[in-house]
Parts: sequence; structure tokens; C-alpha cells
Amino acid sequence: MAMIRVAYQGERGAFSERAAKRLAGDAIETIACPTFDAMFDSVLQNESDCCVAPIENSLAGSIHRNYDLMLESGLSIAGETNLRIVHNLIAPPDVELHHVRDVYSHPVALAQCTRFLDANRTMKASAVHDTAGAVRMIMEEQRCDAAAIASDDAAAIYGARILARGIEDNAQNFTRFLLLKSGERELPLPAATSRWKTSLVFRIENKPGALFRALGVFAMFEIDLTKIESRPIEGKPWEYAFYLDLAGRAGDAKIARAISNLAELAETVKVLGSYPSKW
Amino acid sequence: MAMIRVAYQGERGAFSERAAKRLAGDAIETIACPTFDAMFDSVLQNESDCCVAPIENSLAGSIHRNYDLMLESGLSIAGETNLRIVHNLIAPPDVELHHVRDVYSHPVALAQCTRFLDANRTMKASAVHDTAGAVRMIMEEQRCDAAAIASDDAAAIYGARILARGIEDNAQNFTRFLLLKSGERELPLPAATSRWKTSLVFRIENKPGALFRALGVFAMFEIDLTKIESRPIEGKPWEYAFYLDLAGRAGDAKIARAISNLAELAETVKVLGSYPSKW
Repeated sequence: MAMIRVAYQGERGAFSERAAKRLAGDAIETIACPTFDAMFDSVLQNESDCCVAPIENSLAGSIHRNYDLMLESGLSIAGETNLRIVHNLIAPPDVELHHVRDVYSHPVALAQCTRFLDANRTMKASAVHDTAGAVRMIMEEQRCDAAAIASDDAAAIYGARILARGIEDNAQNFTRFLLLKSGERELPLPAATSRWKTSLVFRIENKPGALFRALGVFAMFEIDLTKIESRPIEGKPWEYAFYLDLAGRAGDAKIARAISNLAELAETVKVLGSYPSKW
Repeated sequence: MAMIRVAYQGERGAFSERAAKRLAGDAIETIACPTFDAMFDSVLQNESDCCVAPIENSLAGSIHRNYDLMLESGLSIAGETNLRIVHNLIAPPDVELHHVRDVYSHPVALAQCTRFLDANRTMKASAVHDTAGAVRMIMEEQRCDAAAIASDDAAAIYGARILARGIEDNAQNFTRFLLLKSGERELPLPAATSRWKTSLVFRIENKPGALFRALGVFAMFEIDLTKIESRPIEGKPWEYAFYLDLAGRAGDAKIARAISNLAELAETVKVLGSYPSKW
């Protein structure tokens, strides 16, 4: 049996690559893509079987671009996982902490390690495109005065050494990743856990009370909501789409009934997927 | 009368600086801060009278860090505006388009100009911390082969020239900025427009139907909601806070009544501010 090909954004050792293995198993072929657009294209062009998209971070919020690409591409959600983001200071093996003058990482990672950098004023922080790419760069250039901020996977992959572990300001730093695939496609994914979720997006008329009535269809059947977010509709000021996550499977009788009631009330409803949730 | 001192994140010519002028008038003293944390500190230490925080982008989503800093600091919202984000290719005056080999900007700005960069493969994109800072850098270094991607304000401030205007992939690129001040403080802000909004955050028990009942207090009085977003509560898996924006003023009889009803239902309710909205 051929290995599942899973596309992700970033370089080898990226947090997305770890999410891919947690979602699709260790025996997969991971395909590194430079951008989110290229990652979705890889699935649409059948160069990959599925992809792993970060969709929200507990500190930075929802990644709307990936919501948009999910809608445009028509891919559907086949799984989710939540990764704790741990940042480490990583350098070539012979470099000691007091040698480090330059620190490279993605600007979001640098921003999440402000306290460490403030406490180490001799280090100059520089932004690059990718956390794992920063490790690859300092190893390739054999820098004796530089370090990167990245995952421990990245350190292991490029043969670098961790000088300081867990240097992020806030330990409550999680990123939620979705596994996305073409709706028709069956993939040999690991067996599902018991907890399922269903994600959908809907539009309702722009009127006071409209959202209240729409949520009534779920309240009626005591369905648990796990996320709601409104989002302005492009080119239509003051009109909104609503993204909703529910506990349960779209095939469950109550959820199927609630969604069919919502379709009566709403202008549009689209189920984005029903999937097992791994935490 | 002393000028209002308005803190913002970034360097001179940043989009935040333009938002500051739109919100507080042209006759203000703007105070550049390297980080969001430093910007809030500047207000709390009374080095500034207020600050301007980007709170959501139409493509990138809500900026949770600024929601957190708003809650931690206790500052309240005194105004909002929505800026269209236009990216330009900017170079020193003598540099022509075909001279440009290196393009510097914030990685988010680079990512938003993918099509332009793909069509100009001779240009190498490099990430720096700040869009306006990239313009300052190429001007200071008198680079004859480099350009920056930034606002037209940044080009004007540093005496640079715009080689290509509006090079962003998606014209529906807006950032919403909030003007934040200490609650007690009266500031001589420009006269309010007629459209007011009120923002609040609340927590409710984690039960099916709880959000539905909470929204009922607004539906009852036909109050228009303009934004809703759930957010996991730190350290309490599967519990959520809800951020809500309403059309109207907190002092309006119906809104005051709805908020007081919500306080009966919810575990906590906090009004973040009631403010004029400039679009």
C-alpha cells in the first residue's frame, strides 16, 4: 500500500509536520510547501492526498486565510489536533549560550519569546520566513555566533543542539491544525477517537435576532457549541458569515435535524466536515 | 493646550500611525513603540494619553494578543476605525524598477504581495520587522538595488519614491484599529460621528443552549450584533469567553437593560467601551 502524501507549509521540522504525523500517523510521506496556497494546490493537483492547515492559535487568533482557502478549494475536514507550541533556542553543536550574538526565527516566534530576548540583550533578533528554516540556515552556514528559535524536532532533524528549552513567554500557546482532504476521497487514516466534532459555515439575513434564531436550532436539541466566530463578507459591509463548531457527528440524528432546520432559516449553510478530535 | 500623546506600534509611517491621526486628529504627538506590550505600558506609565491597537484584519483575523492586553491593562475603547491596507513598492528616488534585486518588508506584507513577487522573479524578498522600518533602512543605507513594501505615508516621510502602487493580492484588505484610553480620562477627541458601537466580553456556564439564552437578551430588544467570537479560557479546556460588538451606546436604555439582563445570566460581563465608529 502506498504511503499517504501529506502536504504542509514550512520546512522539515515545522510544527505543521509534527501535526501531520499526529493526525495521519508516522508512516506518511510529508510534502513541504513554501506557502499555504501552494499547499492547497498540491492537494488539488493530486500531488498530495491531503494537507495539514493551522486554523487558529490560542494567542494569535483564527487564521482567516486558511478558512478562505478551505472554502475556495472545497476540501473538507477529516481530523483536528491541538499542538502545544514550545520554542527552544537552538545552535550548532559547538556553540555555547554566551557565544550567541544573532538569533533567527519567524517574527511570530520572536514576538512570543520577548522575555527571554529582553533578558539576553547581547543577542540580536532577526526575522526569517520559517522557524525550522532558521535552524537549517545556521547549520548550513556553520555559524559559531548564531542560534535559531524553533521546535525540538527541527533541532533533531538538522543535528543542532538545544541551548535553552521552553523559552516562550506564555505556556498557554496552542495551535489547532486541521487535516483536509477532497470530500470523495477515502484515506487509510488512524482509527478515530470517540470525540467527534462538526464544523459549518452559514449566512443569515442581516437583522437583529437572526443569529439568536439560528442558534435556537442547536439549543433545541441541546447540542454543544465549541466555537463561534462572525466574519464580514467580502464586498458586503455589515453582512457576516458565521463559522460554528459543534460537538458530535453530522450523521447523528439530532445534528442532522438541527442542520436541516438551519438550512430553512439561513441563506446558505455549508458543512465543512465531521471529524475526530485529537488533543 | 498640550497635544494628545498617542502611542502606536511600529516606526514612523506605519499603518497604525495613520489610524492614530484618523482617530485623534492631525494635531497629535505620535509616540512610536517597538512592541504592543511597550505601547500599552506607555499609556499605563502616563507617557502617552492613549494608544491605537490593531484588533483584527479582514484576511488574518482577530489579533488576540491585543484583546488580552486590553483586558490586562483595563484600558477602555474610545473609538474605532477601519483602514484599507494598500501596499506599495518603494525605493530611493534614483532607483528604477529594473534595478531592484532585494525587497524588504514585514513577512505579513510580503505574503500579501505574492502575485507581484511571483511576476518579478528577479527580486528576492527578505523579511524585516516593520514595513515603514524597511523604507527607513533602504534610505539610510542608500541602496541602489533595493526596495521596500510599505504605505505611501512611509514613502513620503522618508523621501522615497513609489515604483508600483497597490501591489497587494487582495484589495479587500482592511485592518480595524481601536483607540484605547484609561477609563477615567477625558481626552479632547474629534467630535463623534452618529454611528456608535459597544464592545463587551462575557463568560457563561459551559452548557448547551447557554449562548442561545445569552443572545436572547439582545434579540429581545432588537439590538444589532456586529461581531461575535468565542475564545477558549486559558487553563480551562472547553470553557469559553465571548467577545461581542453591538450597534449603539451603552447608555441607550435598551442596551443598558440588555447588559443588565446579561449580567443576571452570565458568570461575568465586562463592557470594554462604547465609542464612535469611523469607516
